[in-house]
Amino acid sequence: MVTKHSYGEPVDTGAVLVDVSTQVETIPCGVVTQEFPFEWQFGMQESDIVYGLGETVRGMNKRGFSYTSWCFDQSAQNESSPYMYGAHNFFVVFGAKTFGMFFDTASKITFDIGWTESDTITVTTKDTGVTVYAITADNDGMTELESIVHQFRKMIGQSYIPPKWAFGFQQSRWGYKTEADVREVVRRYQQAEIPLDAVCLDIDYMTEYEDFTVDTKKFPDMKKLVSDLGKDGIRLVPIIDAGVKQKKGYSVYDEGIKLGYFCKKEDGSEYTAGVWPGRSHFTDFLNDDAALWFGMHYKVLTDLGIEGFWNDMNEPAMFYSEESLKEVFAHIKSLEGKNLDIDSFFEFTPLSNSTFNRDDDYARFFHNMTQKDGSTKKIRHDKVHNLFGSRMTKAAADALAQIKPDKRILLYSRASTVGAHRYGGIWTGDCCSWWSHLEMQIKMIAGLNMCGFLYTGSDTGGFGADTSRDLVLRWTAFSAFTPLMRNHAAWNTRKQECYSFEHPEDFKNILELRYALIPYLYSEYVKAALTNSMLFRPLSFVWPEDLLARETEDQLLVGNDIMIAPIYKQNANGRYVYVPEDMTQVVWKNSCAKERVITKGIHFVEMPLDTVVFFVRKGHAIPLGNPAACVNKLTSDIVQLLGDGESY
Amino acid sequence: MVTKHSYGEPVDTGAVLVDVSTQVETIPCGVVTQEFPFEWQFGMQESDIVYGLGETVRGMNKRGFSYTSWCFDQSAQNESSPYMYGAHNFFVVFGAKTFGMFFDTASKITFDIGWTESDTITVTTKDTGVTVYAITADNDGMTELESIVHQFRKMIGQSYIPPKWAFGFQQSRWGYKTEADVREVVRRYQQAEIPLDAVCLDIDYMTEYEDFTVDTKKFPDMKKLVSDLGKDGIRLVPIIDAGVKQKKGYSVYDEGIKLGYFCKKEDGSEYTAGVWPGRSHFTDFLNDDAALWFGMHYKVLTDLGIEGFWNDMNEPAMFYSEESLKEVFAHIKSLEGKNLDIDSFFEFTPLSNSTFNRDDDYARFFHNMTQKDGSTKKIRHDKVHNLFGSRMTKAAADALAQIKPDKRILLYSRASTVGAHRYGGIWTGDCCSWWSHLEMQIKMIAGLNMCGFLYTGSDTGGFGADTSRDLVLRWTAFSAFTPLMRNHAAWNTRKQECYSFEHPEDFKNILELRYALIPYLYSEYVKAALTNSMLFRPLSFVWPEDLLARETEDQLLVGNDIMIAPIYKQNANGRYVYVPEDMTQVVWKNSCAKERVITKGIHFVEMPLDTVVFFVRKGHAIPLGNPAACVNKLTSDIVQLLGDGESY
Repeated sequence: MVTKHSYGEPVDTGAVLVDVSTQVETIPCGVVTQEFPFEWQFGMQESDIVYGLGETVRGMNKRGFSYTSWCFDQSAQNESSPYMYGAHNFFVVFGAKTFGMFFDTASKITFDIGWTESDTITVTTKDTGVTVYAITADNDGMTELESIVHQFRKMIGQSYIPPKWAFGFQQSRWGYKTEADVREVVRRYQQAEIPLDAVCLDIDYMTEYEDFTVDTKKFPDMKKLVSDLGKDGIRLVPIIDAGVKQKKGYSVYDEGIKLGYFCKKEDGSEYTAGVWPGRSHFTDFLNDDAALWFGMHYKVLTDLGIEGFWNDMNEPAMFYSEESLKEVFAHIKSLEGKNLDIDSFFEFTPLSNSTFNRDDDYARFFHNMTQKDGSTKKIRHDKVHNLFGSRMTKAAADALAQIKPDKRILLYSRASTVGAHRYGGIWTGDCCSWWSHLEMQIKMIAGLNMCGFLYTGSDTGGFGADTSRDLVLRWTAFSAFTPLMRNHAAWNTRKQECYSFEHPEDFKNILELRYALIPYLYSEYVKAALTNSMLFRPLSFVWPEDLLARETEDQLLVGNDIMIAPIYKQNANGRYVYVPEDMTQVVWKNSCAKERVITKGIHFVEMPLDTVVFFVRKGHAIPLGNPAACVNKLTSDIVQLLGDGESY
Repeated sequence: MVTKHSYGEPVDTGAVLVDVSTQVETIPCGVVTQEFPFEWQFGMQESDIVYGLGETVRGMNKRGFSYTSWCFDQSAQNESSPYMYGAHNFFVVFGAKTFGMFFDTASKITFDIGWTESDTITVTTKDTGVTVYAITADNDGMTELESIVHQFRKMIGQSYIPPKWAFGFQQSRWGYKTEADVREVVRRYQQAEIPLDAVCLDIDYMTEYEDFTVDTKKFPDMKKLVSDLGKDGIRLVPIIDAGVKQKKGYSVYDEGIKLGYFCKKEDGSEYTAGVWPGRSHFTDFLNDDAALWFGMHYKVLTDLGIEGFWNDMNEPAMFYSEESLKEVFAHIKSLEGKNLDIDSFFEFTPLSNSTFNRDDDYARFFHNMTQKDGSTKKIRHDKVHNLFGSRMTKAAADALAQIKPDKRILLYSRASTVGAHRYGGIWTGDCCSWWSHLEMQIKMIAGLNMCGFLYTGSDTGGFGADTSRDLVLRWTAFSAFTPLMRNHAAWNTRKQECYSFEHPEDFKNILELRYALIPYLYSEYVKAALTNSMLFRPLSFVWPEDLLARETEDQLLVGNDIMIAPIYKQNANGRYVYVPEDMTQVVWKNSCAKERVITKGIHFVEMPLDTVVFFVRKGHAIPLGNPAACVNKLTSDIVQLLGDGESY
C-alpha cells in the first residue's frame, strides 16, 4: 500500500507518473516531527537494514552515514562525500517493520541514517516542500522488499530500454582527439580480436567545446567515419555538455539568446559560469520550450549517423562564476601585502580552488519553469537544482523521439533524479582507479535499480588516477554483468584500453563471456523494465529470512537466475562466497564454460585473473550464445544452457 | 645469509648497526640492471607474494602498485598515494624463491612492485647511492619468512621498548586548548569508568606554536596539572614540532641562530619555511651537535614531570617557503588581468594550494651532516630527505637518555626511516575516519613490524573527517591489540572520545579487555624486541604452506598465541574467519570472556558491536589480568588463562 503526504509547497518534479496512493491523515511509517522546514524521523531496531538512496557512497546497507541529495560534480568521491551526481530519494527499511519511503522534492534533502544517533533516521529539507510516499508490502507473492520496490517503480513509470547494441562493450577516453585516434582504437581491438560495439567521444571532438559542432580539423568527415565504423558494427557515442559557449556567431548561442532560453539572473540578463568552453550559458531545461529547442539540436549529430549520446556536466557543474572569480581574486589580493601567518595562510590556500559548484552561485540564477497548466513560473535554481540534469536527459529523449521516431537511441547521463530513469541511463560519474571504488560500484548498483535506473554502469578500470592491469581485469569482470559496460578514463591517466596490457587474451575471455551472455542479459533487462522489477538484487531480497544473505553486501543476483560474487581486492586469487542454496558454479576460462555443483553454505572460491566465476540458481538455466565481434554480429543460436534447469 | 652490495655513493643512514653480511660479487637475488642511477629488477612468479615496505597504502601483499619512499605529510592518503610519512625500504618476496631485500639509502627510492609490468619488480633511485642487502633464510628452525625478517632485524638493532604505561590508552585531540579541557577529558573518562593512561597535547598547549614553551594563559600551572593527573595514574604527552619559530627573543630561536644549528641555504643564511608558527627554521638534525642541542630542550618539559612525547611535522612538513609563496602570488597576478579561459583557469585553480612540501623547496637548503669520523659534510636536503624525521627522534631519544637516565620515556614520531625504530615508536600519521583507512591499518602493521617498528598504532577512530560511533568501536577493538593505542582527531571533526557516543559501556568493554591483556601484550612486545621478531605476523609467516593462510590479508597473529580477525566493514555483524588450525574462540562481552572451540576451516563468526572476538592457538594459554583504571593500578594477578594451554 502507498500513502501520500504533502508538506510545504513542493515543486512538481515529474518523478511520479501514476498516483497509486491512498490518502490517510497521519504518515504510517515514522513521524513527521516538523512540517516546514521538514523533518521526518524513524527509530530503528538494531538489526534493521536500510537499502536504497541510489548513487551514494558506502555500503549496500546505508546505515551509519548522513547522505544529501544534491547533484554535484563529485570527482574522487570518498567515504565522507555526502553527495554524488544523482539525487535518488528512495529507501526501504528492512527489519522489524519493513517499509519504503520516497521523498519527492527538487530541493536539497538530507538523510541521516543512524549517523548522529545510531538508532535514528532523520530526513530533513529546508527548501520548498516535499511529497512523501510511504510504501508497505502488498500481498502479491513477492518478498516484502521486492513488493515495496515494485510498487514504487510502478508509480514512477517504466525504465528506459536502450537499443540492444547498447549491451555491447564501449571504449571511451577523454583524449581521443582525432579521427585517427578513434580508428586506432578500433583497429587495436580488432587486432586483438576483442569484441567492441562503440567508441565514445569525449569533449575533444567539438570545436572549442561547442555543443552540436564537430571540429573538422580533427574529424574532417565525421559522417564517413560513422559510416565506415558502422560497416564493422561499431558506433560512435559523442558527449553533449550542459553549458553553451558564449560566442557571437555560434548559432546555438545566438538562437538561445534571441529566444531567451538560457537561465537568467535576477536582473533578467543571462547567467554566466565557466565550464569547458570558458564562459557559458545554461539552457533552462525546466522550461518546456527551451528544453525542446536544445533537444532538437541533437539532429546535427543524428544526421551524421550517430545513434547514441552521453549527457555530461549537467548537475550542472560550474567551474566558476564571474562573481565567485572576482571575489576570489580580491581575497587573494587582500592577502598579498600581508606577512602570511598561519591563520591567513590557511585562509589563502583553498582560495584558488574555491569557485567550483558553489551554493551561492546556484542561488544567482533562475528558471522559467513550465507548470502543469502550461504557464511558467520564475523559480531560483537552488530550490530546484536536482532537476537540472534530469530535465536535460528528458529534453534529449523527447527530441530524439521526434527526430528518430523509428529508432531506439542510446542515451545516458551523469546527473539524475528519479524520473530521469524513464528517459535514459546513467553512469556513476567520475570514479577513480581504486579497488575501493570498484567495491563501491558493486554495492551501489542495486540501490540504483531500486530507484528505476536499470541502464547503468561505472567507468570500468576507473576514470581518475592511474589504473593497473589487475584492477581493469576485475572491474571488467564485474562490468560484464552491468547493462552499461564502458571502459573510460581521464586524459592524464595511464592508458587502460584492453589491449594496453600484457596478455590481452584475458580481457578477450571476459568480453566474450559478456557477448555470450547478451541474450540472457538483454532479456532479463527488458523483463525488469516491463515488470518494474530490479535487474540487480541483494541476496536478502530473495532470501529475506537467511541471516547470512542479509549480511552479504558483495554478492548480487543478476536477473532471475545468476548470482555474482565479484573480486574487488587486489591480489586476491579467490574469495569467500555465500551460497544460499545449492547452485551451479560456472568457471569461464579460455572462452569456455565449465560447470560444477556448489552446495549451500560458505565457500572459498578460487577466481584467478584469467577466469570469470559466477553461479546459476538451482533449477534455472542460462542461455549462452556465441560471442561475436559486436552485437550486430550476434546470432540467435543458443550454444549452451548453463545450470541444471531444463529451459530458460 | 645476508650479502651486501654498494652502488653509487650511499650516505651512511645509520640504519644497519651490525654488519652481518658476506661479500659476494654478484647480487644473488634479482639483477642490478644499472648501477647509477640505480635500478634493480626481479621477475616474479604468478603466485609470489611481496611483504614489507612498512608504512604504505594498499594490501599486505604489496603487488600491483608503485611505492616511493619519501617522507611526506600525506594527509587523507588514498590508494594512489605513492608515499606516506615513513620510508621503509625492506621487503620480502615469498614464493618460488623466498628472499628479503633492504635498500639502504637516504634518498628517494621507488618500488614498482608489478605495477608497470605485472610480473616485474623494479627498484630505482637516482640520487646518491644505495647499499643493498640481500637476505635468504637460515636453517634456524623458523619459517623462511620469519628467518629473513629475523636476520634483517638483527642487522638494524633492537627495537625501542617503551615504558609499560605506554600500553595504556591515550586520548588525544587537536583542540584540547586549556587545562580545563584536559581535566574535563579525564573527568569524563573517570565518570564513564573507562580506563585511561594519558592525554596527548597537540599544538594548542604552546605559546604561539613555539617548541618547548607552555602557554601559561591556557595552562597556568602545567607542573601542578601533571602532578594532579599523576595521582590518578594519568600522564600528559605533549607534541614537539620540527619547525622552530623565527622570533627574536624566543630563546630556542636565538640560540639556534647563534650556534648556527639551523639548516641553511646555499648562501649560508638560515632557510625559512612556514609551518604552524608561521616562518620557521629547521634544526639540522643530521648534525650531531645541533641534534643534541635540540634534544636537550625536552628537559623544559621533563622538568614539569612529563614522561612522554610525540614528534610531529618532521618529514619535515613545510606549508610554504618564501620562494614558493612569492612565485605563486606572481603567477596568480599574471592571470588576474586575463579573461580566464579553461586552460588558464585550470592553471589558476591549484595555485594557492601549491606551496606544500615541494620538491624544489626541499632542494633549497643544506645539512652540515656529521660523518663517522666526526667531521661534517655539506649535503643538500633532498639527497637525504628521508633521514630528517628519524634523526629528530634520535635527537630526542639520545638527549632524554641523558636527561632521565633512570627512566623509560615514551617517544613516538610521525616521520621515520629504518633505524629510528631503535629510538621510538611511530603512529601511522593523519588517516581519516574511513572504514577503508581502518582496513589499511590492519594490512600495514605487519609490514611496520618487519621494518623494526614495534611500538606503533593508528589514530583510532580516524584523524580527519567526521567519524561514527560504529567506526570508533571497531577501530578501538583493533587498536586494543596494538602497542600504541590512541584515539586522536582533528580540531574540525566530530568529537570522538569514547564518552561522546551512546552506550559508552561498549567502549568500556573493549578498553577493559585491553587492560586485561596488557600482561600478555607487554610481555610479547618485549620478547619481540629482544629476539628481533615480529609482534604482528600475517598467517603465512606461521603456515607458509597453507594456501588459504597465504590468501588471508585481514587476520593477524598478535604475539605467539593470539589470532585476530578485526571487523572493518560498516554494518557487519560478523565476518569470515579462516582458522588454520583448531583454536579457542574467545568472545569478550560485558568485560567477561567466554570460550569455545573453533575447528580448522572457514567460519562466519558473529561479532556484534558490544563484543571483541579473538582466537587462541591450540595448546597455548593467554594470561588475563584484572582490568584497572590505568596501568599503574594493574595488579600482577592473573585471573584467567584463556585457551587450552596449561601455562603461558
